[in-house]
Formats: sequence, C-alpha cells, structure tokens
Amino acid sequence: MAFTAWYTLRKFVYNNLHNDEYETAFSRAVNYFLILLILGNATAVLLESVNDIYQSYRLLFDSFEHISIFIFSMEYLLRLWSIAEQEPFESGWKNRLKWIKSGGAIIDLLAILPAYINFFVPIDLRFLRILRLLRLLKLTRYFVSLQILLRVIEREKGSFQAVIFILSIMIVMAAACIYVVENKAQPHVFTSIPASMWWAVVTLTTVGYGDVTPITPLGRFLGALITILGVGLAALPAGILANGLANELEQRKQFLELKFRELLQHSEIDLVADQEKIEEIRKDVGLTKEQTQDILLQLMREQREEALKQERDLYEYCPHCGKKLPEL
Amino acid sequence: MAFTAWYTLRKFVYNNLHNDEYETAFSRAVNYFLILLILGNATAVLLESVNDIYQSYRLLFDSFEHISIFIFSMEYLLRLWSIAEQEPFESGWKNRLKWIKSGGAIIDLLAILPAYINFFVPIDLRFLRILRLLRLLKLTRYFVSLQILLRVIEREKGSFQAVIFILSIMIVMAAACIYVVENKAQPHVFTSIPASMWWAVVTLTTVGYGDVTPITPLGRFLGALITILGVGLAALPAGILANGLANELEQRKQFLELKFRELLQHSEIDLVADQEKIEEIRKDVGLTKEQTQDILLQLMREQREEALKQERDLYEYCPHCGKKLPEL
Amino acid sequence: MAFTAWYTLRKFVYNNLHNDEYETAFSRAVNYFLILLILGNATAVLLESVNDIYQSYRLLFDSFEHISIFIFSMEYLLRLWSIAEQEPFESGWKNRLKWIKSGGAIIDLLAILPAYINFFVPIDLRFLRILRLLRLLKLTRYFVSLQILLRVIEREKGSFQAVIFILSIMIVMAAACIYVVENKAQPHVFTSIPASMWWAVVTLTTVGYGDVTPITPLGRFLGALITILGVGLAALPAGILANGLANELEQRKQFLELKFRELLQHSEIDLVADQEKIEEIRKDVGLTKEQTQDILLQLMREQREEALKQERDLYEYCPHCGKKLPEL
Amino acid sequence: MAFTAWYTLRKFVYNNLHNDEYETAFSRAVNYFLILLILGNATAVLLESVNDIYQSYRLLFDSFEHISIFIFSMEYLLRLWSIAEQEPFESGWKNRLKWIKSGGAIIDLLAILPAYINFFVPIDLRFLRILRLLRLLKLTRYFVSLQILLRVIEREKGSFQAVIFILSIMIVMAAACIYVVENKAQPHVFTSIPASMWWAVVTLTTVGYGDVTPITPLGRFLGALITILGVGLAALPAGILANGLANELEQRKQFLELKFRELLQHSEIDLVADQEKIEEIRKDVGLTKEQTQDILLQLMREQREEALKQERDLYEYCPHCGKKLPEL
Repeated sequence: MAFTAWYTLRKFVYNNLHNDEYETAFSRAVNYFLILLILGNATAVLLESVNDIYQSYRLLFDSFEHISIFIFSMEYLLRLWSIAEQEPFESGWKNRLKWIKSGGAIIDLLAILPAYINFFVPIDLRFLRILRLLRLLKLTRYFVSLQILLRVIEREKGSFQAVIFILSIMIVMAAACIYVVENKAQPHVFTSIPASMWWAVVTLTTVGYGDVTPITPLGRFLGALITILGVGLAALPAGILANGLANELEQRKQFLELKFRELLQHSEIDLVADQEKIEEIRKDVGLTKEQTQDILLQLMREQREEALKQERDLYEYCPHCGKKLPEL
Repeated sequence: MAFTAWYTLRKFVYNNLHNDEYETAFSRAVNYFLILLILGNATAVLLESVNDIYQSYRLLFDSFEHISIFIFSMEYLLRLWSIAEQEPFESGWKNRLKWIKSGGAIIDLLAILPAYINFFVPIDLRFLRILRLLRLLKLTRYFVSLQILLRVIEREKGSFQAVIFILSIMIVMAAACIYVVENKAQPHVFTSIPASMWWAVVTLTTVGYGDVTPITPLGRFLGALITILGVGLAALPAGILANGLANELEQRKQFLELKFRELLQHSEIDLVADQEKIEEIRKDVGLTKEQTQDILLQLMREQREEALKQERDLYEYCPHCGKKLPEL
Repeated sequence: MAFTAWYTLRKFVYNNLHNDEYETAFSRAVNYFLILLILGNATAVLLESVNDIYQSYRLLFDSFEHISIFIFSMEYLLRLWSIAEQEPFESGWKNRLKWIKSGGAIIDLLAILPAYINFFVPIDLRFLRILRLLRLLKLTRYFVSLQILLRVIEREKGSFQAVIFILSIMIVMAAACIYVVENKAQPHVFTSIPASMWWAVVTLTTVGYGDVTPITPLGRFLGALITILGVGLAALPAGILANGLANELEQRKQFLELKFRELLQHSEIDLVADQEKIEEIRKDVGLTKEQTQDILLQLMREQREEALKQERDLYEYCPHCGKKLPEL
Repeated sequence: MAFTAWYTLRKFVYNNLHNDEYETAFSRAVNYFLILLILGNATAVLLESVNDIYQSYRLLFDSFEHISIFIFSMEYLLRLWSIAEQEPFESGWKNRLKWIKSGGAIIDLLAILPAYINFFVPIDLRFLRILRLLRLLKLTRYFVSLQILLRVIEREKGSFQAVIFILSIMIVMAAACIYVVENKAQPHVFTSIPASMWWAVVTLTTVGYGDVTPITPLGRFLGALITILGVGLAALPAGILANGLANELEQRKQFLELKFRELLQHSEIDLVADQEKIEEIRKDVGLTKEQTQDILLQLMREQREEALKQERDLYEYCPHCGKKLPEL
C-alpha cells in the first residue's frame, strides 16, 4: 500500500516537473513560480554587482540567495528522483544517469553548486554566482520561433563552422600583416601578432572600437582592404541564415502538405469540420496559422476541382468505352 | 431640415477627414495642408531646441505653435464628431469610443495634450513638445512599400521576439563575464554588471563606440568571442526579413493569380481589354505593375496554349482517347 | 560630294563614340584611350590634393589638366555633333537636345565646365576639380553584373524609399529623446536636437564613431534600445536586396525559357547545333552560362521525353480507336 | 628490377601525398602529422612575435623552425618527384611543371623559401616568417561546407566585382567631398583626398573607428548621408550571398534528382536497398543527408503512387481511355 502511494507521488512529481504535456492549474503554477524565481535570481545577480545596492540590502540579498538555493536544490533532487518514471521499462537509475548527463541538468547543477562549494571552502567565490545566470537558458523552451531559429542554426552548423574557420584564418593573417607594417610606428600598440589580433577581430567584425588603429599610410591601406573583406565576411552568416530559414520553412510546409494529403486519401480528416485536428497537426509541425492556411486553401481548391472534373466526366464520356457522348 | 443639413455636414467632414476612398480636390487640399502642418511642426520642434534660433524668433515659434495646436485640436474634435458616420448602424458614441482608443487617435491626442497641460500647470514641460514629433508616424500610410515591410515585420513578430530574447540573454551573460574579468583592471569602467551591459549592447550590435573597451588579455579574448557572436546575431534579423519578404510576396502573387483564374473561369474579366479592372485588383493586393505583368503573361500564355491545343486536338489527337495520331 | 563625305565622317564619328554595337580595332582603341584618360584624371585629382606632390609637379599636373580638358571638350563637341545620326528620321538638333539633357552628357559637361568658368572668373574654384571624378560613373557600363544590381535597386526603389522614411523618422525621434535625456549632463555635446541627430545617425547605422556617446544611465538605456533598433534597421536593405535579386533572376530565367520554347515551337533553333544563337540570346537576357545551362538541360530532357513518349504511343495504342494493343 | 622498385616507391609516395582517394592508416597518419605541423608552425609564428616568449625559448623556436623547414622541404621535393604519376601518359616533367605553377605548390614554396634566402643573404628577413601562415590556407580542403561557400563566391564573382567597383567609386567621391568640406576646419586630419579615403572606407563599411570624424555641421550632414549609403552598400554582399547560396543548393538538388530519376528509369538503383550507392552519389554532389532525404522521399512517394495508380486503373478507370468508371 505504502509502495503504491510512493509511486503515485513519484508519478505526480514527474508530471509536474518533467512532463510538458501534463497541464493542470497546479503544474502551471509550479512552472510560473520557477520562471519567476529564475528571473528573480538573474535580477539579484545583476543588482548584487552594484556595490552600493549590495551593501544597503545585504541581508535581503543573502536571504533570497539562501532560499533560492534551497528551492533549486529541492527541485534538482525531486527531478532526479522522479525522472525514473520517464521510461518505466528501464531501471530508475539508468533514467537518472541519463538525465544527469543532459544539458538541462548540468545547467541546474552549475547554478546551485557554487553555493555549496563556498560553504565548505572559505575562499571568495562570489564571481561564481554569475553561473546562476545560466538558468536563463532554460527559458528558451517557451519560445516557439526560437526553436525554429535554433533548428536552422543547427542544420547550417557545417556552414557556420566554415565561416568560423575562414574568420580564424583571416584574423591570424590580418594580425600578422598589420603587425609587420605598424609595429615600427606604434611598438606599444601592435606589440606582437597575438596582441594585433584584437585589432583584427574588432575590424573584421566591423565593430571598430577605435582604441587600436593603424596610423601609417601603408597600415591604413592594409586596414582598408581588411575592413572591406570584413564587410563580405559579416555578410556570410546573414546569407546562410536567410537561405537556411527558407529551406526549413519549405520543408515543414511540404511535410504538412504530405500529412494532410495522406489523411485526405484515407478520408480521416475533413478540411472544413476538423478545425481542432488541423490546429493540432499545425502546432506539431511548428508552422503559423497563415502558412497553414495557404496549404489548406490549395488542398480545398484541388478537392473542388477534382469534384468538378468527376462531375463533368460523368456526363461527357461514356463510362463503358470512354468515347465522347454528344454534348447535351 | 436643420437635422438633415447637420447630417450632410457631418458626412462631408467624415469624407474629408476619415474616408480614404473619397477623393476630391478639396479633400486632397485638406490632406496636403495637414501633411505640411505636421512637417512644419516637426521642423519647428527641431529648430526650437537650438537656443540661438529660439531666442531670435521666439514670437514666431510661439505663434506657430499656438496656431498649430488650435488647428490640431479642431481636427481632433471634428474627427471625433464625424467618426459617427463610419458604421451607421451603430450608435455614434460607440464609434467614437472605438476611435479614441485607436493608435492614430492616441497619437493625435498626445500631440496636443502637453500644450493644454502646460496652460493649467505652470511648470516647464517644454520637453513634452517632442511628443508632437509622434505625428510624423501618421505619414506612414502614404508609403505603399512601407505597408508591406510593416506587414512582414508583424508576420515575423515571433522570430523577432526570439531574437530579442537571445539578445537579452547574451547581453546579460556577456556583461556578467566581462565584469568578472575586467572589474579588477578597470574598476571605474566596469563598475557593475548593469554598467557592463552598456559595453555588451554596443559590442553585440557591432556599433562599437570604443568609450568602454576591455584592456586585459583575457578580457580581450572574451571580447573577441562576444564580438564574433555579435556578427552572427546581427545576421539573424536580415535572414528573417529576407525570408519573410519572399514569403509575403509569394503569397500575394498566388492570391492574385487565384483571383484572376476565378474571374477567368466565370468569364468576368478579359485580360487584354479590362486594364482598369486589372489595375484595381493589383492595387488592392499591393503588388507592383511588374510583378502583376508576370502573372498576366503566364495566364495569357496558358489561354493561348489551351486554344491551340483544342484546335490541334481535332487534327493531331484521337478525339476519343486523346492519344496522338500518326502524322499525316 | 563634299556633303556626302561630311555625312560619312559624321557617321564614322557616331559609330566610334556612341554606337556600342560597332566594334573595330579603332573604336576599341578610342574607348580604351578614354577609359585611361578618365582613370588618369581621377588619379590626378587625388594626387593634386596632396600639397607636397602638387607643389613639386605643378607644371606636370597643370599641363595634364589642360590637355585633358581639351580632349574632353573635343569629345563633347564631337559627340554633340555626331549624335544627329542616332535617329535619322528626326532633325539633328532634336537628337542633340535630347542628348544634352541625358545623364551621361550632363556628367561630361560638369567635368569640363569648371575649367572654363575658372578661366573667365578669377576666383579660386580649385575644389570644383573634384567634379571631374563624376566621370568615373561612366565606367559603370562596363560591368554586366552591375547592371543587374542597379536594376534590382531600381525595382525595389519603393522599398528603399520606405526604409529611408523609417530611418528619417527614427533619426528625428532618437535625436529628440537623447537630447531631452542627455542635454543636462552633456550640454556642450547634445546642444540641440539637430546636433543630436549626428549621434542618432551614427548609432542607427551601427557605425558608432564614439565621438558622441550618452553617459547618464538613462541615456545609455535609451541608447541601447536605439542601438538594437539600428541592427533591425540595418537588416532591412539586406533583406530587400536578397529578395529583389532572387526575383530578378527568376524573372530573367523564365523569360529565357519562354523565348527558347517559342523558338523551339517554330523549329527556329536547335539546342545542340545553334550554340552561337543561344549564346547571343543568353547575353541579351543578361544571365550567366551556368544559369542558362540549367534551362537548356531541362528543355533537352523534355524533348527527349516527348520523343520517347511518341515512340511508345505508336506501338502501344491503336491510332484509330485509341484502344490498347496487346503488348509485343 | 631496380627500376620497378623505383616506380613502385614513386607510386607509393604519390598515393600518400597527392591521392585523396587512397586511404590507408599510413596515409592518414601522414596527413594528420602534416596538419599538426602546419598548426604548430602557425602557433610558433604567433608566439615568436611576442618578444618575451621568443627571448626565453629562442633555442626551442629556432630548432622547431629548422626541423619544420627540413620536413616541409622534403615534402615539397617528394611531391615534386611523385607528381609524375598523376597522368602517366604524359612525361613526368610536364606533370611537374604544371604542379609547380598550381596555387597549392606556390603556397608551399613561399612557406620554405624565406628560410633559404635568409641563409644566403645576411639581412634580417624575420618578417618573411609570416609567409609560413599561408600554409593555413591548405587546411581549407578539409571543410566540405567551405567548398560550397567558396563555390558560391566564385559563381557570384561578377556581382562581387560590381560591389567592389561601386565601393571604390563611392570611397573616392566620399573622400573628395569630405576633403572639400572639412579641410578648412581640420587641416591636419583631412590633409588630402587620399588621406580622407581612410575615413571614407571606415565609414562606408560601418566600422567607424572614430579616430577621424567630421566636426563641421556641413561635414556631419555629408557624413550622415555617406553613412546611410554605407548601410545599403554593406547589405549588397549579404543579399548576393543569400541568393547565390539558394541557387547553388537548388541546382545541386535538381542535379541529384535528375541522377536518381535516370538510374531509376534504367532500374540501376533501388531506393531502399542500395543505401551505399545513394550515400556515394550524395557525397559526390555535396549535399547533406537531410537535403537528400527530401528528394528520396519524394521519389519513393511517386513510385508508390505510380504503383497504386496502375493497380487502381484496373478497377476504377476504363483501361481503354483512362476515364473514371462509375463507382461500383
């Protein structure tokens, strides 16, 4: 009996902390509370770094931190315990080990660990507090469009690696060239190639702080060439992303169209009546209502044309030999 | 009788101030006069801020402002009164309340309100005058291409929110990192995380003023990484917009083609003769002449081919099965 | 007789100076000589502005300028005289007037006029010499890809106007806001709204010189918001251009395909044998070899499939009733 | 006998150093060793430029350089000797001459030559050491996505030339204008047009160092206009690349589809069973697995529909004319 209650409780915790599809007023409340706590912690980390504010409200900040650490630790332990429910056919600890090694769990751990280390080791690890900001990354899953962007970035990973590679080579070469040219004129600015790489990065990315700039005519000529290359380089990611987004969207639309066509072929959907089912499929694929509407209109048009054609066929041709009947 | 005259007057005012489709010499004159007044007010606000000019022509500026406020107040009241004509089947005040809460009316009110507040409250609210610049936003409706751009921006709202979200997280994290690294070396520049966020924004957007820059090797290494991320981030909006524009245009073209096809099917349009009707539809959909021309050419080609095919069918194909006959 | 020689000479001058399609060794030599003279003049204008160089080689520069002005004046007069040949059915002076008002002729005139004005008026108009740089614009016609770019920019004119309009409004508003916020803290930097517009432009375009920057917390917060808007704004032209280029290319490809199809229908071209004719059409439309190759391959494939289908039809179906023959 | 051994050795060296398709554990080890040596040399060049490090580990750096030069020289000679195997039907020296003039061989030579020159000529050519960085360019062939990017850049060469041309003209004109306007106010900054070109480049590329900025109202107005033009200009490469990438990908997909269709027509491939063959074709064309999957799915769908149609035809359609029979 106690055992059953135990499992029921674990299932309940699992649903509220892990299961995205389980939505009750309580699970939503838990979710909102955790979001607020993450935002509150981020704000606290920002404000603590302002000395005046920290000195004035020290006690408040420290209490809030202690409470947050306690809640986040509880959350971590409860998640660790309840994740066993995820794949019921595997052992609980296998599920747990898999979860511990996931990105989300590592972020959670990094956010609470510094506090415990600080407790045992008396050195000042205050700067480790900024690790709590990592928790902000967990908010990403609330943005649907972000998922598409991240998906595109992941798909075009190869292209971005190539851009990083070109950029690296150009930084090294630009730095080496400007070092050779400007070192004599500004020995304290362009002291070495690694030091000149700061200028190269700032220039090739078109940021241009202006704290380090060439002053000799040859250096400026070289700088101008590198600057122009920088514009071309900065254009690469934009081009890759524009293209990647277009492809991702195209693919999703094709997938959606295919899905609808298959459902229509087996008469499992009615484009006019089954709005809920359509909406569900749309959300699954991750398209906006507008993009879906296009496809639906196209399908309806085809259905109507098909119907018209069949109607016409019945009257214009003989169904037995296919020869044309005299027009009525 | 007086009542009828009253309603006729209200209809007349409504047509001239609200109705875009009503175009007479008088309504156009009213429109141009209001545009000029908006531009004049904007110029006045700019020039008034130059102390020398304001002191020299104080009387002129003040008179112009008083007159403008009077005219804009009149316009506001007349619009409020005549809007009752918009949906004749609803009560006038319902129409009015709806209008008052619209974006355009709020801008209008914000532009005149400061003057009245200043009249009653003797404090110096001169800086509120810049609210009159908001009226410039009302000029947006005279740019057709702008409508498409704004439409695309609205459609891709989700993606832009995602970009803002990524940007916010990156600003906070970049600021926190640079604060930890550079705070010791430049305690008066990177005083706190919120203060370091200025550097983070300026760097991630590739603006790079150079008023705040890292100077330690580690800080510069970190700065370089963040700068490179910044280039990728700045590429996101360009990619989203390129893709959004392409989709919007594609959709409009499809819509136009569909419309023409339907009209052709019911023989309600002649692609050669009904230039006016075509032009009207084109403007409704918001495409340029060139883009429309493509679609029209395509449709004409199809018509001709259809005609050719029917003709040929009598001679080249078997009229019963549609198969090609051996050439004679 | 003398008259005929006169007209023959005029025709000869016209061909060499105006007619792009007339290509002989002499006309090419004239063309190259004029290009070199334009580049030489541009170089001279640049070098003359360096005081040391100008003082050392004053005589050389002045002689070169005099000779150039003489040659350019001759060219202008010869062009004016020979343009009469352009449309032989109109009067010579009508052709000439039309030419004088064309963009190219105005640039030519602006390049030589300052020298003559300086001759009559004794004031120092040396800075007018830079007008000679305008001649560089005449080199644009030697770049085919440039024509496409300029065509796209012209097509998307409406969108760019909209961008300029948004940019203008944002500059004015950003300047007004920063002026109100920063004026107290930096009265000598943000002296007035027009003066603050410099900061607004430099920030919204993400150039970021850093000569003028906000220093108050509120000013920096506002500056950060404007900076982020600037990134979005800078993305608009890239998006518009990417989309415009894609459309222009698509349209040209469709046009080329249509042209080939029509020629094929009337059997006026052979896709394998008439390489010269294909090349000519390709250049006319302004596409690269690669882009054309795609279309040609597609057309050849269709031809082959059509041939295959006809072959099959002859054997599989009865040409009299369309009924299927037993398979062989 | 000795001769045969000689040729066998040459073939072995050729396979290991030149032949990309020959892959054994040994050839891979040689490859990795050379990559490491290139990276090691690049690091050494960077670190040597830091005076402190160079002075401390002088002997180490010099030894590493001597050893590297020796290995790279050996590699160069072995490559030169073994390249004779490339086209066995031509004479060995013809192959060698062709290789010596190739880009890769020139880079290799430039990397080792300075060391030998320095040996014979006693002047300090230390800065020539940075030529060894050129070897980094040889790493490009290990990035597949980079090949596509470089291919697109090459394809759009014409467009980029046009952009460089526009940029050059705009730089010259912007410099000339700002020189005329600002020269009086800042004679030591805008000393001449060539000197002002530094400002023009830095502004038009939106880098904006801020070391040189206009200060007069007219200069700032002009600067603002040029800055805005700069944003448009910086957008050109992004637009060209986005469009070029889309076209390149489209072309490769079409090519792949065509290839598969031809293989299917001749029944030379089975889309389900011949995964290896599909994978091989995919790599040849240079597409990702995902992009290929789309095409394969489409083809499989068509196959299935074709099969279904044939089946259905027996029951639903008249086998003689293809018209639908009334449902039973």
